[in-house]
Amino acid sequence: FRRLHQAALTDLKQVLGTSHDVLVFCSSGTGAMEAAVSNLFSRGEKVIACSAGKFGERWVEIARAFGLETIVLKADYGRAVPVEQVEQALAANPDVRGVFVQASETSTGVAHDVRGMAAAVARTEAIFVVDAITGLGTMPLDIDGWGLDVVVGGSQKAFMIPPGLAFLAVSPKAWRRAETADLPHYYFDLRKEKKSADKGESSWTPSTALLLALSAALGYIKQIGMDKLIENAQLLARATREAVRELGLELFAVDTPAASVTAVKAPAGWDSGLIVKEFRNRFGAIIANGQGVMKGKIFRIAHLGYFDFADVFAIIAGLEVILNGNGFPVRYGSGVAAAQRVYAEAAFPKEAALA
Amino acid sequence: FRRLHQAALTDLKQVLGTSHDVLVFCSSGTGAMEAAVSNLFSRGEKVIACSAGKFGERWVEIARAFGLETIVLKADYGRAVPVEQVEQALAANPDVRGVFVQASETSTGVAHDVRGMAAAVARTEAIFVVDAITGLGTMPLDIDGWGLDVVVGGSQKAFMIPPGLAFLAVSPKAWRRAETADLPHYYFDLRKEKKSADKGESSWTPSTALLLALSAALGYIKQIGMDKLIENAQLLARATREAVRELGLELFAVDTPAASVTAVKAPAGWDSGLIVKEFRNRFGAIIANGQGVMKGKIFRIAHLGYFDFADVFAIIAGLEVILNGNGFPVRYGSGVAAAQRVYAEAAFPKEAALA
Repeated sequence: FRRLHQAALTDLKQVLGTSHDVLVFCSSGTGAMEAAVSNLFSRGEKVIACSAGKFGERWVEIARAFGLETIVLKADYGRAVPVEQVEQALAANPDVRGVFVQASETSTGVAHDVRGMAAAVARTEAIFVVDAITGLGTMPLDIDGWGLDVVVGGSQKAFMIPPGLAFLAVSPKAWRRAETADLPHYYFDLRKEKKSADKGESSWTPSTALLLALSAALGYIKQIGMDKLIENAQLLARATREAVRELGLELFAVDTPAASVTAVKAPAGWDSGLIVKEFRNRFGAIIANGQGVMKGKIFRIAHLGYFDFADVFAIIAGLEVILNGNGFPVRYGSGVAAAQRVYAEAAFPKEAALA
Repeated sequence: FRRLHQAALTDLKQVLGTSHDVLVFCSSGTGAMEAAVSNLFSRGEKVIACSAGKFGERWVEIARAFGLETIVLKADYGRAVPVEQVEQALAANPDVRGVFVQASETSTGVAHDVRGMAAAVARTEAIFVVDAITGLGTMPLDIDGWGLDVVVGGSQKAFMIPPGLAFLAVSPKAWRRAETADLPHYYFDLRKEKKSADKGESSWTPSTALLLALSAALGYIKQIGMDKLIENAQLLARATREAVRELGLELFAVDTPAASVTAVKAPAGWDSGLIVKEFRNRFGAIIANGQGVMKGKIFRIAHLGYFDFADVFAIIAGLEVILNGNGFPVRYGSGVAAAQRVYAEAAFPKEAALA
C-alpha cells in the first residue's frame, strides 16, 4: 500500500505540474474545500469568496460555517467575477487573509480568470484557494507559475474514476498560514495528513480500490499528457457550443464559457427537465438539469474526462431529435455538422476547407 | 449452481420461444456448430450446406471434416441462397439428411429466408440446422412454428455478454437422428449434456461467471421482450442503411440485408481498412473490416446487442468526418439526418412530417 500511495501522490504532483505538497483525502471534493478553510484560517479572519453559481455559494457557506468574515463578490448566473472586482475588494480590505474561487463553475458553465486573480492575490498577504474540481484537465492551471496556493481536485471528474477521493495541492505560503491557523478540524487535518503521507501512509482508512483506480488513471493521463487532455476538453466544448448555436439555442455562459460543461438555455416556454428526461429515456444519455434556481431553465452537457467527439456527435444528434420531436424545429444533422466542422478543422486542417 | 444453471436454461427456452431442449456448452459458437454435425449424422451421409460467405464456408468445412458428403449451395458474396435452390437440391437428392444455413451471414451482412427454407426441409427426412449466432435477437425466428430442428446461438452477440458460451435448441426430429448417429464426438456430446442438464449439472466444468452474466442478460431481455429487441435491431439497421445510402456509399448486401450488421462497400479506390483504422484512432469506435477475400473491400457496422440510436448517430457522424477527411466529400450531418428521420418516424409518427 505504501508504494501505491506514494506513487499516486508522486504521479498526482507530476500531472498537476506542481512542486507543492499534494495530499489525498477519502472524501468528496467538498471535504477538501472544507479542509482548505478549516486548516488555513483563524477565527474571525476576513476572506473574499467569488461566487458565480452554486459552487461559489458553497465557498461562502463553508467560510461562514467556520466563522470567517466573508466578503462575497457575486456574479450574475452565467457570468464570471471580473479580476478588477477582486483587485478592488483586496485594495479596500488590506486585512483579507484568503480569496476563494471556482476555476470552472459547473452549475453555470462559467470559467474564471484564475491567472488574473492569482496575480492580484499574490501582491497581498492573502492566500488564493482554487476549487479546480472540474477545472483540472479542462483548462490550463499553472499552479506554481501563477501562484495558486491551494488547488482542490476530485477523483470523479477529469480523472475519470468514481467519486470518493479529493486532493489538495498546498503551497509554502499556505503552509505558513497553517502554522498559526486555529479553526477546528479533525478528519481533514492537513499537517497530520502530510506527516502520514511522508511515511507513505494515510491518516485514516484509505479507499484502496479508488487509489488503485486513480493510479491507473494518472498513468493514462501521463501517457497522453495533461495539456492534450485540456486541449481535447476545450475542443469538445467549442464543438458543442457551435452546434448548440447552429440549432438556434442560446448559451447560458456567453463571455467566459468553461470547457468542463456547456450550459444551454431551454427554448422559450420549455422546462429543461424535459430535455434531460428525453435524453435518458430515448438514448440512455445523462445530461444535467440546472441546479437550484436554474433548475428547469438550463441544461448542461459535460465534456470532461472519459468523453470524446463520438459522444458529442451522438449528444447533438439526439438533441436535434428531441427538439424536433417536441415542437422546436431544427434541421436534422445541422448541429452535428457544426460540431463536425470543429473536429475537422482541428484534425484535417487542409481538407476541412473542401467540405 | 444447479439452480442458476436450470434457471438459465429455462430462461433461455423462454427467450428463444421454444419447447425444445436447450443445451449450453462452454465454447465459442463454432463448438456448437460442430456439436450439431458430430452428434446428428452418420458417416458418409449426404447434407446440403448453404454458403453465402465466411460462416457458410465454416459449415462446409465442419461437414467435410466429419466425412459427410456435402452439397454446397453457394451464393455470390452479398447475396443469399434462394429458397428455390434448396428445394431443387432436396428434390434432386432425396437421400439428404441435413441442411445447414446461417440465419444471418455476418461476413457479408446478408439474411437468409429461414422460414422458407424450413418449410422445404420439413417435407423431407432431413433436419434443418440454423446457425443463428447473430440472427437471434436481430430477426424473427419461430423455432417451433417454422420447424427449425437445431438452432445454434452464442453468448457474445444479442445476449450482450462476453464470448465463451454457446447453446443449441434441439427438436424431437433432431433427437431421433441422434439415436443412430455414429460420428465421433466427446466434448460436444448432446445426449450426455442433456442427461447432465436434466440433473441441473453440466457435463464439464462450467463457465460459472458467464452463466451468471447470461442469467442477468436473459432477465433483461425477458423484461424488454425478445420482439422489441428484434424490432430495435431492425430499426437501427434500417437507419444505418438509409444513412449510408444518403452519403453516396453502396450497400454490399442489397437484396436481403441482415439486421445484425450492415456491410458497406468502401469508396472506389479505397481500402476499407483505412476506415476501420480511422474509427479506432479518431473515435475509439470498433467497426469491422471484410473477412477473407472481402478484406479491404467492405466495412461492417454491427447493430446488435448493447447498441442504440446514440451509437448510430455517433458512428455515422464519425463516418462523415472520416470520408471528408480522406477526400470523399459528403455534406456534414446529411447521413446523420437520414438516420434521425428513421428514428423520428418510429418515435414521433406525427411530428416527423414537420422536420
